[in-house]
Amino acid sequence: MKENKLRIIPLGGLGEVGRNMMAYEYHDQILVVDTGMMFPENDMLGIDYIIPDITYLKQNRSKVAGIVITHGHEDHIGAIHHVLEEIQVPIFATPLTIGLLEAKLARYGMAGKADLRTVQAGQSVQIGPFKVEFFHVCHSIPDGVGLGIETPAGLVVHSGDYKFDHTPVDNWPSDYAKLAEFSQRGVLALLADSTNADRPGWTPSERVIDGALDQVFSQARGRVIIASFASLISRMQQVANAAQRFNRKVAFVGTSMQDNMRIGRKLGYLEIPEDWMVSIEQARSMPESEVVIMCTGSQGEPSSILGRLSTGTNRLFDIIPGDTVVLSSHPIPGNEENVFRTINRLFQRGANVIYENIAPVHVSGHASQEEMKLLLHLTKPRYFVPMHGEIRHLKQHAVLAQMVGVPAENIATLENGQVLEFVDGEMRLGERVPSSYVFVDGTGVGDVSAEVMREREALSRDGIVLVNLRLAHDTNRLLSEPEILSKGFVVARDTEEIFTAVRRKVTETVSRANGSLQKDVEQAVGNYLYGETHRRPMVFVNVSRF
Amino acid sequence: MKENKLRIIPLGGLGEVGRNMMAYEYHDQILVVDTGMMFPENDMLGIDYIIPDITYLKQNRSKVAGIVITHGHEDHIGAIHHVLEEIQVPIFATPLTIGLLEAKLARYGMAGKADLRTVQAGQSVQIGPFKVEFFHVCHSIPDGVGLGIETPAGLVVHSGDYKFDHTPVDNWPSDYAKLAEFSQRGVLALLADSTNADRPGWTPSERVIDGALDQVFSQARGRVIIASFASLISRMQQVANAAQRFNRKVAFVGTSMQDNMRIGRKLGYLEIPEDWMVSIEQARSMPESEVVIMCTGSQGEPSSILGRLSTGTNRLFDIIPGDTVVLSSHPIPGNEENVFRTINRLFQRGANVIYENIAPVHVSGHASQEEMKLLLHLTKPRYFVPMHGEIRHLKQHAVLAQMVGVPAENIATLENGQVLEFVDGEMRLGERVPSSYVFVDGTGVGDVSAEVMREREALSRDGIVLVNLRLAHDTNRLLSEPEILSKGFVVARDTEEIFTAVRRKVTETVSRANGSLQKDVEQAVGNYLYGETHRRPMVFVNVSRF
Repeated sequence: MKENKLRIIPLGGLGEVGRNMMAYEYHDQILVVDTGMMFPENDMLGIDYIIPDITYLKQNRSKVAGIVITHGHEDHIGAIHHVLEEIQVPIFATPLTIGLLEAKLARYGMAGKADLRTVQAGQSVQIGPFKVEFFHVCHSIPDGVGLGIETPAGLVVHSGDYKFDHTPVDNWPSDYAKLAEFSQRGVLALLADSTNADRPGWTPSERVIDGALDQVFSQARGRVIIASFASLISRMQQVANAAQRFNRKVAFVGTSMQDNMRIGRKLGYLEIPEDWMVSIEQARSMPESEVVIMCTGSQGEPSSILGRLSTGTNRLFDIIPGDTVVLSSHPIPGNEENVFRTINRLFQRGANVIYENIAPVHVSGHASQEEMKLLLHLTKPRYFVPMHGEIRHLKQHAVLAQMVGVPAENIATLENGQVLEFVDGEMRLGERVPSSYVFVDGTGVGDVSAEVMREREALSRDGIVLVNLRLAHDTNRLLSEPEILSKGFVVARDTEEIFTAVRRKVTETVSRANGSLQKDVEQAVGNYLYGETHRRPMVFVNVSRF
Repeated sequence: MKENKLRIIPLGGLGEVGRNMMAYEYHDQILVVDTGMMFPENDMLGIDYIIPDITYLKQNRSKVAGIVITHGHEDHIGAIHHVLEEIQVPIFATPLTIGLLEAKLARYGMAGKADLRTVQAGQSVQIGPFKVEFFHVCHSIPDGVGLGIETPAGLVVHSGDYKFDHTPVDNWPSDYAKLAEFSQRGVLALLADSTNADRPGWTPSERVIDGALDQVFSQARGRVIIASFASLISRMQQVANAAQRFNRKVAFVGTSMQDNMRIGRKLGYLEIPEDWMVSIEQARSMPESEVVIMCTGSQGEPSSILGRLSTGTNRLFDIIPGDTVVLSSHPIPGNEENVFRTINRLFQRGANVIYENIAPVHVSGHASQEEMKLLLHLTKPRYFVPMHGEIRHLKQHAVLAQMVGVPAENIATLENGQVLEFVDGEMRLGERVPSSYVFVDGTGVGDVSAEVMREREALSRDGIVLVNLRLAHDTNRLLSEPEILSKGFVVARDTEEIFTAVRRKVTETVSRANGSLQKDVEQAVGNYLYGETHRRPMVFVNVSRF
């Protein structure tokens, strides 16, 4: 007889923010929860985004029974097209999440190719040996769910991204009753969102933004331009409500913003009367005091609408002095410089800019410490696994769990790839499965390695110097002056002097070279340049013999 | 008769954080205040630091009468050796600042070459037409001053970096009486620190850190390792005091930390009894519960001691599981990723890490909004010029000034290089002087231009591809297969396939080329690679004819 063994296999989101992906394995079946992507850090040069390492799933392709997506944010759905290329199984999610998945797959030419199955919050679905109960949670996107995963080895509660908002914009609070019911049935393990584990207190309700918007709208003389994430559908609702209160029409600008607005309205998650909406073309010809524009770019992305507005390179409209720009967002760690640079440039162009530090125009969608404690008390898990966060968040979440009575030995602070096993109700560490960063760069997936990244880093630091040598075919006699070219090294006006010296150095080295002339010259040039400039450009020498 | 004209020439620190430098010009004499450096932003690839553009001072070398340094932080003294290479004039500062300047100049082999003159806070010094009164201000380094600059055109108050701390560690509050006296004499203009202009309320006293340290020390079982800036001399005092309260000996580690500790003790700004200090070698052989180590690296710099501890590459000592590491600091904007990565790695190595989010182990050294309002009320300036900050800070500081009654038209939100003139008590904008970024990279000053930076950026994004062609001397006949080499492009295992196709493409292009073969091939290869990979490596083609 087989062991009564449940395996938890973290494939992303443990020890990092983003690319959330968790696999649950019971006997020969695997349930995947979420397929997220992650934005590159500043030193991951040239990378577009990072996806989970699904080697383990590919190796066990036939075992995968289904995929559940908890909500429609990129860090939970962003890798879906990569996963679907390898693994074709049914995908279960709530209506809005399904709508967003459809739009995303369509953008990658995969419309209609996925088996998408709608499940309402409150419903259950059987996926192999897993009975998955979807329960509603508040988050910064509507229709988010957590999961109660009933297995023969016990009940696991997977929180998804959540907060306990008593006055959410859609008036749909998190499902406390279901959480309490889980605790009555007995929760083997809780896996919970750790994003804000180092934030004391209770995350403010989305509702506080209404007051801040009222203040902004009441003081704005010209247009109001609000930047946020395209996926923040509740923020769109709040902006549209404020617009109506202050007699302004809303223009939603940008493909992703418009797509999500349409999906939200169609599925009933967004209520904006048609006659309160205008196109950006209409908005441009209206009095400035009657207009609100909502667009993307709150992370300061240079190619976004707000990014282009800040540099005066946007196509459809421009900043007008007197505009009030609101960044309804919090910088993703690592984006601070871009965000603040965008804000500074908008000020420079004559806008008044309102951002988080100035007024509460944004709140987090994630639980803070007191909410985390509440979730632990509501579910009363025997074991606790912090997920979704950097190590510092996981560690801090573990501290909180101990505060509310979970014994330290019942808490597993895992890393991606570290399998955790529950056998007859006892927890133990399992083996490790592959979990490395999979970089997506252009159309390439996984073809940028750590070595390629180191090369890019070296190139970026001091540039390159190319040396072309024309030598006689049988001796080390130079047939012409060495040709030298550089990129990213020093400013053109300074190269003449340096390169004259380099040519001398090269000629000298060539005349003395015996063994590997190319290596000798590369080394001599590298050393000379370091001595002169304290920089280490990559040096490439090409030798042609005639 | 000459006009009674005072010119304010901002050379750094307006619209940016760091490289603070201000020049005051009256008739034919110039007073320079501060000579700071600035850390590069994440996309300033390979740059070590940035200094002010002193073109205007070089053009008016003979007019410069003196330099005053307000305090010993790098963003106020860091460019001193560059400035002294161009302009040899007396430098005036308080004793600790002079001590730190001496140490800095010694590191650059310039010991004894500068005319350093000590001025005590409370004293005045005449520098050309400028009577400069040094008044004490609290900041995160002892012996900081603001300046009352009396000129025939009026009295200017230059705040320097300041906060109003009622319980500073050295028991030396900011000089309220002097500020009030200035207001009685009548202040023409106030130039004030805007760093925290978007932070509401009042910056907490340095003293709150004592309580946080007490808590950390009382809970730590093993060693306590505290990372901070080497210049945070008051933090050294607080750590030493806590160590004595908890019966631990302190080891200061790292050259800059030790240098500053010695200077601080020698000049009486740091009181640590000799027998409470040990070397790191001694500390290593002591029981862990009797040791505190203080070191640098609180910004997550990979080459710092804390950075090396986090990666297990430090020479003199290593992290021991059970260590408590305290980051007594706030990430400089843009450093968040490095700081949090360091924290995560320290957790991974078994340390417990305490940082700002977990406990108040750091406070800002800069005034918050209520303190800014207090300074405005104390000095009652006719005109106000916010300085030291990004545009968003300057704009917000201007808003605060209006709140306390300064008319909008009496506030000048300047950019670097924008001269401001006061003639007979009236303010007007003057001309612009050069103010561009001067990048320091290795030994090069100003030889990295925007174009070089763009090249580095391009190199960093997708790497390079080098193609070598051997052609017959008279026809476009390839004498051998094209040689192809790449760096930072794709992982080695994938190059074989791509390069085979590129060789085919090159051969094809060569056979069809008529005009500029090199350009044609570069373009063909670039386009082909973009089509295949959606990346744009820099392509270099070298043609040798035989």
